[in-house]
Amino acid sequence: MKELTNTWANIEGKNIPATIKLDPIIYEYTFSGCRILDIGCSAGNCSIPLALHGFSVTGIDINSEALSMAKSSSISQNCPQTPLFAQSDATHLPFADNSFDIAVMQAFLTTIVSKEDRSKIIKEACRVLKPQGHLYLADFGQTWYSKIYRERYLNDLPLTKEEGSIIAYDEVTGEVAYVAHHFTEKELVFLLVENGFEVEFFKRDYFVTRTGNRVNGFVVVGKKM
Amino acid sequence: MKELTNTWANIEGKNIPATIKLDPIIYEYTFSGCRILDIGCSAGNCSIPLALHGFSVTGIDINSEALSMAKSSSISQNCPQTPLFAQSDATHLPFADNSFDIAVMQAFLTTIVSKEDRSKIIKEACRVLKPQGHLYLADFGQTWYSKIYRERYLNDLPLTKEEGSIIAYDEVTGEVAYVAHHFTEKELVFLLVENGFEVEFFKRDYFVTRTGNRVNGFVVVGKKM
Repeated sequence: MKELTNTWANIEGKNIPATIKLDPIIYEYTFSGCRILDIGCSAGNCSIPLALHGFSVTGIDINSEALSMAKSSSISQNCPQTPLFAQSDATHLPFADNSFDIAVMQAFLTTIVSKEDRSKIIKEACRVLKPQGHLYLADFGQTWYSKIYRERYLNDLPLTKEEGSIIAYDEVTGEVAYVAHHFTEKELVFLLVENGFEVEFFKRDYFVTRTGNRVNGFVVVGKKM
Repeated sequence: MKELTNTWANIEGKNIPATIKLDPIIYEYTFSGCRILDIGCSAGNCSIPLALHGFSVTGIDINSEALSMAKSSSISQNCPQTPLFAQSDATHLPFADNSFDIAVMQAFLTTIVSKEDRSKIIKEACRVLKPQGHLYLADFGQTWYSKIYRERYLNDLPLTKEEGSIIAYDEVTGEVAYVAHHFTEKELVFLLVENGFEVEFFKRDYFVTRTGNRVNGFVVVGKKM
């Protein structure tokens, strides 16, 4: 059986879901002149609002088409400082240690199929953050009370091999489009505390998915230890 | 090593924690003349407000002292219908099938150390409910983002043998006072769906513990299938 992986580098930019909005809690951690790295920035869903607030934003993503969309969009919106967008793999960031004040990961970890890669990504975010820097993380939570998701978690488990992961199929071809992971609170907390952060803020929230379903979500802020 | 069990039958009534308030969602399911069973009613924390609304309430608990307190309290508060309080074990309810419209379990399952007993208790609640009857359940959730609880879950695991359970010690004698279990969403959902209910309402909430800590909580309404 083929192992499931995600190939976000090739997905069409306009097909990348972007349904979560930045939680205002992030503005408790920003400050004038702060440098923000948006990891898995996609078409600029977080980068652009942050740049419109006047912050110095760098967005990285593996998908070049999404980056082009982000760039066009930031230019047309006249950000005080145009964000810098760069194609990069979140497991190996092309930045020096202690470069940023804040890292943002919004609905990004959900797309990372490998647990080891998720740890690497958090470690890399930690490395490029300044001491006491903050990681803002918003992602999907396992939604067991929903019959739809409960059944998807159970049905897809033999293929995904990870509880809480679901397979999204291409509506036209019927082939696997991507795998998305929904987290437990425990998983997200240990991803942070085992990779250089302490949990400074934790909120259980609800998000809407690409298909309009209401699912559990988490908004977390970690502080680099 | 002695196996940990809870002996709520002997604990002093005034020492039984009762910090969660009834969620108003319950009044979406009550109706004039409805019969409510409060399972693990303790000193009447839920039974009395429900009786004050004019509903026919029966409260059962294993602890006779708590039941006396509940009875006195209901008399002094002049409920339109004085609730009936009875000493009983929730795994073997002394009621016929299809007797109640609503069952209430508030911060009760948390005190049940055995997983098998938790299932039995939900099955019993289902049995005594009328068809389409509702179970209102409010209980503590695992709170991994809190360093205090994260450490308690991990430290107490060798003794409790169940993730998410914590040991509360007597402040005076230092001996184990009781074991409390904090649930995951998955655990609570499967307790319901595997024992006769479907999930009709599910809310992630925050509760305050006996010691003033803010922890995750769930308010759930199941419908008898």
